[in-house]
Amino acid sequence: MMTLDNYREIVEDHLPSLLEGGSPEELYEPIRYVISLGGKRLRPVIALAACDICGGKQEDVLHPALGLEVFHNFTLLHDDIMDAAPIRRGAPTVHIKWDANRAILSGDTMFALAGKLMLQTKPSCIPAVMSLFFQTATEVCEGQQWDMNFETRTDVSTGEYLEMIRLKTAVLLAASLKTGAVIGGARAALADRFYRFGLACGMAFQLQDDWLDTFGDEASFGKKTGGDIAANKKTYLYLRALELADDHSRSDLLHWYAQKPEDPTNKIQEVIRIFNSLGMQAEMEKMMDLYRTTALQELDHIRAEIGGVSVLEAFASAVIRRQQ
Amino acid sequence: MMTLDNYREIVEDHLPSLLEGGSPEELYEPIRYVISLGGKRLRPVIALAACDICGGKQEDVLHPALGLEVFHNFTLLHDDIMDAAPIRRGAPTVHIKWDANRAILSGDTMFALAGKLMLQTKPSCIPAVMSLFFQTATEVCEGQQWDMNFETRTDVSTGEYLEMIRLKTAVLLAASLKTGAVIGGARAALADRFYRFGLACGMAFQLQDDWLDTFGDEASFGKKTGGDIAANKKTYLYLRALELADDHSRSDLLHWYAQKPEDPTNKIQEVIRIFNSLGMQAEMEKMMDLYRTTALQELDHIRAEIGGVSVLEAFASAVIRRQQ
Repeated sequence: MMTLDNYREIVEDHLPSLLEGGSPEELYEPIRYVISLGGKRLRPVIALAACDICGGKQEDVLHPALGLEVFHNFTLLHDDIMDAAPIRRGAPTVHIKWDANRAILSGDTMFALAGKLMLQTKPSCIPAVMSLFFQTATEVCEGQQWDMNFETRTDVSTGEYLEMIRLKTAVLLAASLKTGAVIGGARAALADRFYRFGLACGMAFQLQDDWLDTFGDEASFGKKTGGDIAANKKTYLYLRALELADDHSRSDLLHWYAQKPEDPTNKIQEVIRIFNSLGMQAEMEKMMDLYRTTALQELDHIRAEIGGVSVLEAFASAVIRRQQ
Repeated sequence: MMTLDNYREIVEDHLPSLLEGGSPEELYEPIRYVISLGGKRLRPVIALAACDICGGKQEDVLHPALGLEVFHNFTLLHDDIMDAAPIRRGAPTVHIKWDANRAILSGDTMFALAGKLMLQTKPSCIPAVMSLFFQTATEVCEGQQWDMNFETRTDVSTGEYLEMIRLKTAVLLAASLKTGAVIGGARAALADRFYRFGLACGMAFQLQDDWLDTFGDEASFGKKTGGDIAANKKTYLYLRALELADDHSRSDLLHWYAQKPEDPTNKIQEVIRIFNSLGMQAEMEKMMDLYRTTALQELDHIRAEIGGVSVLEAFASAVIRRQQ
């Protein structure tokens, strides 16, 4: 019985050797660097798992799974240029370590390399796998553009925010699962269940990420909390709080989100006080529960049809832990 | 009997409608803008022509042909950011008209849209078409990186320059022809002839472009000559002149290419004088003839096998006109 860690080992065993060589060095060095920074390798792990559960062969899904990881890292690389982010996974981002041109072009190359990897499967699966790949790639770009639009907009609704994270985060997790299922031989309706399971996990995962950034335990979360508040980031938590607030709390929230004090400690405390007064922890839990329930329902159907989904249960638990 | 202009009309008739709509507007507006700026549409034209010659159906090749045009425009968009180019086809580049972030992300989206279009053909052709597409995309990125490397290097050989233009320019023309041929039903050896024909045309085309920039007739060339010299661009013409020069001329050339005077008129005259003293017009002609001959030999083989190549003859004449 394979575990998430087993699949992750397979990914780590095969990913670096795929990226050896390549010329000119200036182009491939940043690619190897980005991939070497690690990460949880969630997307290839769940693609491998989905194929396995559906009874497919690992050799058919391995390269597409790695392609999804290369694609994901391409999006991070380009997002980091656009967001002017200096650090990713504790190390300098490519546009800082080298320059923006190297980051743009090595990113473009990663998109092409990802595509090459996606093709290394059974020819009969290629049209479906590639169609999903490009649809997902388009949606991820749309999600990033919505996210950038939101930075300067003051009228973002929670519905728009949820659509943004669906595109920016959830669809790639969903596509990873569906890719594995399709290659594993799942019929269309079953493959779509994998997709919807991944979509719901992705939504819950992103909401949880927002929750942790504000309410998380710094020790177990692994980074300082309050960063989103300090950066005036329009998260679901903030946008939903605005919807629920009375005029007084709303004006307080808008006041705090109109400034970036050098020391944000007081601001963070005050905003959290407002969030708590609005019952935002319970409100967030409610929304996460909604996606959690959807994910588990899809999983029930998958279990009923083909069984052996314990690794997906482990995945769902890992990305959508209950907070309390 | 279809002409290049007929194929171009087909491209212009179908390209804009493909790019209507799309959300968010901020992402799709630059894409429609770039495509609306026009261009010769060479890549889709020759893809349509190759499919036609091989006896394929237009409906099978139309979308992949348009995908090649969208991909080509994506590379121009990102190259313009990297080269800090303010103008493309007489209009402001995307990163100037909007900003670098919009240019990066709308470019990424064009890559994905191109891929979607490439898939809209007979399923049996998809593995070969997509494999060529991603191989070509990777090579085009490598070519751009070599080009950027050359800007700061002082030891670029003519061989390295030829490899750079093969990757940056010629492979996409070659791939466009081969894509059309594959979809048209050509067997592998014949499809490879289309590829080599396109590769040779692409090489001759790029060398001619360098030639025209220095020796062209401004009226018929349509832009001011001497731009490459003013910009100290390491073209084949310059690099080959360095190889052929005696110590004196070589030191003169290096002297001129170490400066960028505000008024380059004198510099351009002096450099052209050195080029002429080295017989560079004839030297360039010799090299262009080499590729021209290769292209025409491949065309002879294609004609012998399937006939009806007059539109490819017209293409070859258009891109590799004799100068004298």
